[in-house]
Amino acid sequence: MQLSTIYEPIQEDLNKVEDRLRSVSGVEFLRLSELLDYSLSGGKGIRPALTLLSGKFYDYNLDYLLPMATAVELFHTATLVHDDAIDKSSVRRGRPTINTMWGEDKAVLLGDYLFAKAGALAATTGNLQVIKLSTQTIMTISSGELNQAFNAFNLEQTREDYFQRVSSKTASLFSMATESGAILSQAPERSIEVLKGYGYNLGIAFQIVDDILDFIGTEEELGKPVGSDLAQGTLTLPAMLLLERYPEENPVKRLFQNGDKQKNIELAIELIRSSSIVQECYGVASDYCSKACHNFSLLPDNASLQALIQLADYVINRKG
Amino acid sequence: MQLSTIYEPIQEDLNKVEDRLRSVSGVEFLRLSELLDYSLSGGKGIRPALTLLSGKFYDYNLDYLLPMATAVELFHTATLVHDDAIDKSSVRRGRPTINTMWGEDKAVLLGDYLFAKAGALAATTGNLQVIKLSTQTIMTISSGELNQAFNAFNLEQTREDYFQRVSSKTASLFSMATESGAILSQAPERSIEVLKGYGYNLGIAFQIVDDILDFIGTEEELGKPVGSDLAQGTLTLPAMLLLERYPEENPVKRLFQNGDKQKNIELAIELIRSSSIVQECYGVASDYCSKACHNFSLLPDNASLQALIQLADYVINRKG
Repeated sequence: MQLSTIYEPIQEDLNKVEDRLRSVSGVEFLRLSELLDYSLSGGKGIRPALTLLSGKFYDYNLDYLLPMATAVELFHTATLVHDDAIDKSSVRRGRPTINTMWGEDKAVLLGDYLFAKAGALAATTGNLQVIKLSTQTIMTISSGELNQAFNAFNLEQTREDYFQRVSSKTASLFSMATESGAILSQAPERSIEVLKGYGYNLGIAFQIVDDILDFIGTEEELGKPVGSDLAQGTLTLPAMLLLERYPEENPVKRLFQNGDKQKNIELAIELIRSSSIVQECYGVASDYCSKACHNFSLLPDNASLQALIQLADYVINRKG
Repeated sequence: MQLSTIYEPIQEDLNKVEDRLRSVSGVEFLRLSELLDYSLSGGKGIRPALTLLSGKFYDYNLDYLLPMATAVELFHTATLVHDDAIDKSSVRRGRPTINTMWGEDKAVLLGDYLFAKAGALAATTGNLQVIKLSTQTIMTISSGELNQAFNAFNLEQTREDYFQRVSSKTASLFSMATESGAILSQAPERSIEVLKGYGYNLGIAFQIVDDILDFIGTEEELGKPVGSDLAQGTLTLPAMLLLERYPEENPVKRLFQNGDKQKNIELAIELIRSSSIVQECYGVASDYCSKACHNFSLLPDNASLQALIQLADYVINRKG
């Protein structure tokens, strides 16, 4: 199913989020305006869609939901801009990254601006619970990214470490997207928990699929080079399973122990693609998607509920 | 006059801010804890002192002022950590920088964490005006830093450009420190304006003195190498005055046009030290300090008022 079909119940309002994102770059300082414009285009809009869809079950008030959905996308963009600067990545969404175009220094400062602007938009909701949720989430994300950075090229990582990291760096923002939508629509506590849990589990599944695609996708589909995670020394689920299957000798181990980089990445990709590891990882992701929708009987049944179910399906089947 | 004497009316509470800063590093993730601990020690505490002193004129409520003063210091530290990473600076406060010790990637992520933690503390005041002020200030600072980065090694900058940049990157945070203290102590609108204006003008003076010290200080006093600004291609007031005095031929021009780096920095330092430029810059800074205290007759006269006046004097006479 296409995203545009899934977004149908909120498409009109998602367009308004797009408009607001465009207006973020309408600042006087032209160089900043250019950077904002460049960084804020080309996203799939999954996170703001989650906020809007989660707000559709009770009091769907756009005065609060539009700024928050915009903030969620800005927070996400800020993390991408900083990640690319840190990893010295050259391509994202099929285009040169901010750090490639303007230098790492500009990327760091642009990310700071985006974080602050996102915080400013979250503050316009006037909802302290949502404001605190935002700051807590950014602490969780940067802490998770730090954990990843400190564990680069470390072979001694458990699956538990992996899920902890995925939870911090990805699921926390998905969960903030849904929880804030629920809070801002005056959802009862029980429904907030269901939607928060949905975002969290969907986020874990999303990241697992991201990690699979990094091995089985094409550069065109991904909008960035294949095998980026291994190149950064990030041990993801497929690579962990490969290590478990061939504990004595395998390309991930050789790569992490300073072996030939390109050759071992290619070998790891080949081995993973031709094994049942891909299927096994998809199985894990699917379990999280099922878990995401587990308590949906507690929510009112409407078009948004169907969209969230379809989105869980989309997350598994997407190609990039 | 010594800072410890000036801080006397709030010393006890400034110690509580110190305690809170220490408790910020009490996180489970040990590597993060270590980075927080390292980055949060060694500051002079001017900004949190400004928040506490500004809160002393009306309802001095520590429930709000302590978290905000702590947040102000965290915001400041976050900008320092990112600045050092961007400039690849190796020394700060007489010690190796975070980027030197742990790498630029860790410095970027630590800065993000500090920004978010600061935002979280500001949110605990429950005061939306102060929360919005914080986010707006970080937007202003990062925008000012971006402006500086885009104008590195650009000779075509006016004094107006300089003051604009100083206003964004330094005065905005000083002004937030005093304004938030005033707001959180329920100061009347007119007093908020006086204290905000004090912080703003003091911040401009502080940065001008910083820029002078970068030429006339010693590495020991500064806790970092002399001539850092020129090395980064940042055109500050003393260098601008040097360009105005010798428009045809001077070391700043040669440096910015790719001449020998170390030699031209040394020459510029020598020329500025031996000229009346230093005195002229101090004159400008003093004017801002006088302006800072201009409307103090509108505030209740108390020990904090005297401390703020002494602080303006300290800012001019400090050596590092």
